[in-house]
Amino acid sequence: MDLIDIIGIVAGILTSSSIVPQIVKTLKKKKATEVSVFMFIVMMTGNALWVYYGFDKSDVAIISTNFLALGLNITMLVLKYRYRS
Amino acid sequence: MDLIDIIGIVAGILTSSSIVPQIVKTLKKKKATEVSVFMFIVMMTGNALWVYYGFDKSDVAIISTNFLALGLNITMLVLKYRYRS
Repeated sequence: MDLIDIIGIVAGILTSSSIVPQIVKTLKKKKATEVSVFMFIVMMTGNALWVYYGFDKSDVAIISTNFLALGLNITMLVLKYRYRS
Repeated sequence: MDLIDIIGIVAGILTSSSIVPQIVKTLKKKKATEVSVFMFIVMMTGNALWVYYGFDKSDVAIISTNFLALGLNITMLVLKYRYRS
């Protein structure tokens, strides 16, 4: 793995990490955040398209970090459903 | 431009678009959202690293959509500063 691939993976972890505070907040408050389900579906569609794109380009950084983001978005969506009011 | 490049650009627009509702909400309420400045700096660092990665790989989809995301994050940060309480 080259340095540039590591840079790509770090980039993807940073851009995916914005969902983590929302997950933590929802778990603590046991109440879903204000972010809409629609927005999560938009983001998950984007992540899925990036994964497809990554496979076409054989790009490990894109594939791995968008799988991570997809997993985080699914977690958030499950929590939103669980803690719906 | 091939179909796969268009798929990449659509993917990037979808994953970047999550910031737009926050910008609209902040402009309407004239009050900054709860999302922390730290989180925006993390995301902008990620976007900047993706742009660097995109140039290295000569990847138009990554470069263009991360410039878009960077622009949206800067806009949100300016609004947060303007409407700080």
